[in-house]
Amino acid sequence: VIYWNGKIRPPEAVNIAPGDRGFLLADGLFETMRGYRGRVFCLAQHWNRLKSSADFLEIPLPLSLAELTGIIDELLEKNHLLTQDASLRLTLTRGVGSRGLSPPADPIPSILLTAQPLSAASAPAVARICIVDIRRNELSPLACHKTLSYLENILARQAAVKAGADEAVLLNSRGLIAEASAANIFCVNDQGWLLTPRREDGALPGITRQVVLDLAKHLGIPAAEQSLTPSDLVQAQEIFLTNSLIEIQPASFLTDGKCMPITAQLQTVYRQRL
Amino acid sequence: VIYWNGKIRPPEAVNIAPGDRGFLLADGLFETMRGYRGRVFCLAQHWNRLKSSADFLEIPLPLSLAELTGIIDELLEKNHLLTQDASLRLTLTRGVGSRGLSPPADPIPSILLTAQPLSAASAPAVARICIVDIRRNELSPLACHKTLSYLENILARQAAVKAGADEAVLLNSRGLIAEASAANIFCVNDQGWLLTPRREDGALPGITRQVVLDLAKHLGIPAAEQSLTPSDLVQAQEIFLTNSLIEIQPASFLTDGKCMPITAQLQTVYRQRL
Repeated sequence: VIYWNGKIRPPEAVNIAPGDRGFLLADGLFETMRGYRGRVFCLAQHWNRLKSSADFLEIPLPLSLAELTGIIDELLEKNHLLTQDASLRLTLTRGVGSRGLSPPADPIPSILLTAQPLSAASAPAVARICIVDIRRNELSPLACHKTLSYLENILARQAAVKAGADEAVLLNSRGLIAEASAANIFCVNDQGWLLTPRREDGALPGITRQVVLDLAKHLGIPAAEQSLTPSDLVQAQEIFLTNSLIEIQPASFLTDGKCMPITAQLQTVYRQRL
Repeated sequence: VIYWNGKIRPPEAVNIAPGDRGFLLADGLFETMRGYRGRVFCLAQHWNRLKSSADFLEIPLPLSLAELTGIIDELLEKNHLLTQDASLRLTLTRGVGSRGLSPPADPIPSILLTAQPLSAASAPAVARICIVDIRRNELSPLACHKTLSYLENILARQAAVKAGADEAVLLNSRGLIAEASAANIFCVNDQGWLLTPRREDGALPGITRQVVLDLAKHLGIPAAEQSLTPSDLVQAQEIFLTNSLIEIQPASFLTDGKCMPITAQLQTVYRQRL
């Protein structure tokens, strides 16, 4: 069952209106979260990011965090996800509008929440990455928001898969590393520094990205947000990807994995922190 | 009534699936067309653009132009739009997929077609325009495709309306004029040349844009696709916007209109050509 605008129902009983601006114009936002045996990790952080982006777009948020928590609990229970890991997606749109770009004066937003089992086998232990031609526009005011406009990322992923990789690394308009198509990217340089692209370089402010930066500080691993070139990445000692579902996933330009001690340490502590 | 995946039904009987990639990821395309008393202008051109973009995105098109024509005829008739002007929108998505960015191997695309009366009063005689801060990324491989990713254009429109204008003009990453938020832009310079931004500068290859370029040639008005700076636009003798619905709409940075002889001539001939 899924949640749609106030009700929990089977997917086939949900009708998204053909005039919904999320469907017609990508006028909305989303969050992807991971549930660990019934508990969603960093729910408040996801909620705060959604709220902040919704404020920016002037989309009202018709739920409180407490209400969302109740809905998630019910959804996980009804989908038998209290004893296994789950992938959750919350989609917020500006709702139905009349023809054209201009938003309705008093939008009635739509909210979709889905939860499904997360199979451990879905992600490769080491992601093969490649740098694709598609540039992320770090100058867009939307670059720091998780909007529904994901077609460029889809194109990037398609290009990577065609090149025999699992995931695409996108550069920004100046040729600096921005992020992967569905994840933030980190590397460890030959001085042992853990580095990840700056938000100004087009990195989405990922929730897992922030957790990893906090964990590194806690562990005494020197870490920084810093501009990275493709050359920095290719010469890195370790590379890993982060998002709420894959957590910390080792990555390599090579098809064979290599020893990544800092990545392994962070992976272990990330799971312990839950 | 509206058309959705093979059937013509009332909008409330249409269920867009919550897993449709158009809704979740803006993974799709659209066309906006104008019906003139039952006849859609430039239908074949709209179809060709959609087909070409669908090929680029690897979304199969489950209809032929002949089938689409039949559906449009039925839709216009059932909505009593054979004797008045109509606004039509065709939306194509990659359909339902499983979680994540990677497209399904054998997508079953979704098609939505809506038609509604077009009120003559909806567009101002002269659009007040202003240049907004949001840049159009002309380097994106999607810049020349009419995709569902329209949130930047919505932001641009919102910014223009807040500034007291009707429509936003977007610059590209190099500060050259790209297009308006929902229209192409033309101007007439002091030598009498009709100019419009190049596709390489971020102008969507609009159907009406091409018709106007053809009409200018036919009328002996010197015309060219050419890079334009904000200064070119501010100093222009005439400015107008084009799309399938507004046709040729005079535009001005000022709140009062001014005499625009070439715009007026093109407006007249555009209507005659129908």
